[in-house]
Amino acid sequence: MQTIKFLQQPTSEAWINQAIANLDTILLDHSHCERKAAGVALNLIFRYPSSAKLVRTLTSIAQEELEHFEQVNQWLDRRGIALAPLTPPPYGAGLRAAIRPQEPHRQLDSLLVSGLIEARSHERLGLLAAHCPEPALAQFYRGLMASEARHYGIYWTLATTYFDRETVTQRLQELATVESALLSTLHPEPRIHS
Amino acid sequence: MQTIKFLQQPTSEAWINQAIANLDTILLDHSHCERKAAGVALNLIFRYPSSAKLVRTLTSIAQEELEHFEQVNQWLDRRGIALAPLTPPPYGAGLRAAIRPQEPHRQLDSLLVSGLIEARSHERLGLLAAHCPEPALAQFYRGLMASEARHYGIYWTLATTYFDRETVTQRLQELATVESALLSTLHPEPRIHS
Repeated sequence: MQTIKFLQQPTSEAWINQAIANLDTILLDHSHCERKAAGVALNLIFRYPSSAKLVRTLTSIAQEELEHFEQVNQWLDRRGIALAPLTPPPYGAGLRAAIRPQEPHRQLDSLLVSGLIEARSHERLGLLAAHCPEPALAQFYRGLMASEARHYGIYWTLATTYFDRETVTQRLQELATVESALLSTLHPEPRIHS
Repeated sequence: MQTIKFLQQPTSEAWINQAIANLDTILLDHSHCERKAAGVALNLIFRYPSSAKLVRTLTSIAQEELEHFEQVNQWLDRRGIALAPLTPPPYGAGLRAAIRPQEPHRQLDSLLVSGLIEARSHERLGLLAAHCPEPALAQFYRGLMASEARHYGIYWTLATTYFDRETVTQRLQELATVESALLSTLHPEPRIHS
């Protein structure tokens, strides 16, 4: 599996059990994840407006995340789950704290953190697809997973466009360690990244 | 013209002349406008995650603005204009300053300010379509203008979904006065909202 290149630790059995027992909350959190993913792509475009390749590829990613956001919201609607805020798990803030504030480190770290989140989401949507007891919902996760499979590759490719490969590989390993550490204890509230 | 309902003063001849004499800069600024419009729609979704109608309609608007952003960037590419930052005119900051910070005023004002910007963009893209000496570019503006014509109506409709009609109408008049005042002196740098 290509995700192994990015993720140092696979998702635990405990997360799968927690998620399958709380599918409605997971769907609501998933909606927030898609919205945030679109927001992060757009923020990177705002921050690096002169980087043509970054602007072009992240525009596509933002569009795709918004489509997924819409699709997840339709699932919420069909299940009678009202849109509502949810407290985020510590995962996102923990990863953001690892982004070094000075350029050009900030750009490299931002791209790699987004890549890691996409890799983890891809892995977890795959687990939901495999374990979800509702066939239609499992099928939905399978579809999303397939079309999101490219995103983490895109972030990696962007990183190697603006930084040399060795720098990217070394920093990715460091950030992947942070990423896996953040998920080593299951967050008590069910979330995509609990 | 439906824009008259929203805009207190039509765009001056001076703006048309400035814009037509600086089509490349106007295109670059237009790219930034589309990107910002998508960002504003997404920020409103972030801020009001429980308002289902707002979330649904603004997701569509954000998607459409991203498509336009992509199309404008293709025009820049064809003309050999590099993506680059541009200092914004005082228009956006001036309008944002008129948004009252306390809820629910903030929501009402945010929706109406977005509606006014859309109305003005619609008017100005129409003027570019009418006066642009390059037929293909004029045609592009005409197309955008037509598909953006709905946006200001959507913001108005959203405002009347969450606030009573009289409150909306009165506040719109106040904000429209601010909007026209901000454009009463031509900004020296050519911009969509100079």
